[in-house]
Amino acid sequence: MPLVRISLRKGRSIAERRAIADGIHRAMVATIDVPAADRFQVTTEHDENALVFDANYLSIARSEGFVMIQITLRRGRTPDKKRALYRAIVENLAAAPGVRPQDIFVSLVENEPVDWSFGDGVAQYSPG
Amino acid sequence: MPLVRISLRKGRSIAERRAIADGIHRAMVATIDVPAADRFQVTTEHDENALVFDANYLSIARSEGFVMIQITLRRGRTPDKKRALYRAIVENLAAAPGVRPQDIFVSLVENEPVDWSFGDGVAQYSPG
Amino acid sequence: MPLVRISLRKGRSIAERRAIADGIHRAMVATIDVPAADRFQVTTEHDENALVFDANYLSIARSEGFVMIQITLRRGRTPDKKRALYRAIVENLAAAPGVRPQDIFVSLVENEPVDWSFGDGVAQYSPG
Repeated sequence: MPLVRISLRKGRSIAERRAIADGIHRAMVATIDVPAADRFQVTTEHDENALVFDANYLSIARSEGFVMIQITLRRGRTPDKKRALYRAIVENLAAAPGVRPQDIFVSLVENEPVDWSFGDGVAQYSPG
Repeated sequence: MPLVRISLRKGRSIAERRAIADGIHRAMVATIDVPAADRFQVTTEHDENALVFDANYLSIARSEGFVMIQITLRRGRTPDKKRALYRAIVENLAAAPGVRPQDIFVSLVENEPVDWSFGDGVAQYSPG
Repeated sequence: MPLVRISLRKGRSIAERRAIADGIHRAMVATIDVPAADRFQVTTEHDENALVFDANYLSIARSEGFVMIQITLRRGRTPDKKRALYRAIVENLAAAPGVRPQDIFVSLVENEPVDWSFGDGVAQYSPG
C-alpha cells in the first residue's frame, strides 16, 4: 500500500538507485507492518536546479547525495513505529548504497483504507 | 480541484497517454461530482528501474502496462463514491486505450476546501 | 518542512525556474512561519500532453505559463494564513519571473509533526 516517491539528484547508477528503493522497502517491512509484496515506488532524478534542499536546516549537513522520500500510507502507525521507520531507512541506506544519514529526508502522508485500489477497480482494504 | 498524478512505464504513445488521462477524468466527473472543467493532471513516464510495482500483491497479476494514479481531492466523498470511482476508472481505461483492470492502481489523498487556490491568489472554495 | 512540488510546462529558462522556486519559498517564509532555511523543493517540467490543465475553470483564463504547486506541510496553519500564502505566491511570481496570477495553481496537503524526518533517522519535530 504505501506509495513511495523517491527524488534524487542525477548521477547515481542504476544499482545505487535500486539499492535505495530496496532499502526503503525493507525498512517499511521491518518496522511498520508492510507486507513484503506490497511494493509500489517511483524514483525520479533531478538536476541541481530542480531538486533544491537547504544544506544545513536543523544543523544537519546535507550533500549532493540528498535523498527525498515521500510515503503515502494508511493512517494508524504509532509515532514510535514511524520513528523506527526513519531509523531503519537510514541504517539500510547507509549499509547500501552508502547514503549519509544526514542526506535522508522523509515525509509521510496518511489516508484511509478506502483510499486504495490495487487493481480490478476494487477498494481491497474496504470493499464495502 | 482534484490534482491527478499518473505514473506509467515508458513506451506508450501520446494517444494512449491522452486516453488514460481522459478516462480518469471522465470517471471522476461521472462518479465523484467533479465538474468537467475541473481538470488538472500530470503524467510522468519512467523506466523499469524507476517505476517499481509488485507483480502479484493481493493476487492481482500486474504487467508492464501498470498505471499508478494518485489523486488529491477535497475531503468528503463517501466510501461508496470512491468505490464507484475505482470501477469507472477501470472500465474507462479498459475501453480506451485498453489497460488491463489488474494494472490500475489508485491512491487518494484528501484535504480541505481552503487548501486549494485555482489562480489569482484566492482560495476559491473558502474565500474567507 | 514543507515539501514543495512545482510542475511546469517545458520551455522556461533555469533563471525563470529558479525565480519561481525562490518566490514560492519567500512567500512561505513571509506568511506561514516557515524558517528561511527550511527549504525542500522539486521542480519538474512537462510537455503539453503531460501537464494538462483546464484553460478556464472557475472563469480563470490559464495559459501555457501555468504553474502547478503542491505543498505538503504540518497541520495547523489557519485559513487566513493559507489565504495570505496564496496571495504572496501570486505577488512574488508576478514580480519575478513574471507569472500571470491566473496561471498559479496551489494545493496543500497537511500531516503531523511526527511525519517528518530531516536527516539522521530522527523525527526532529516529535523526537519521542
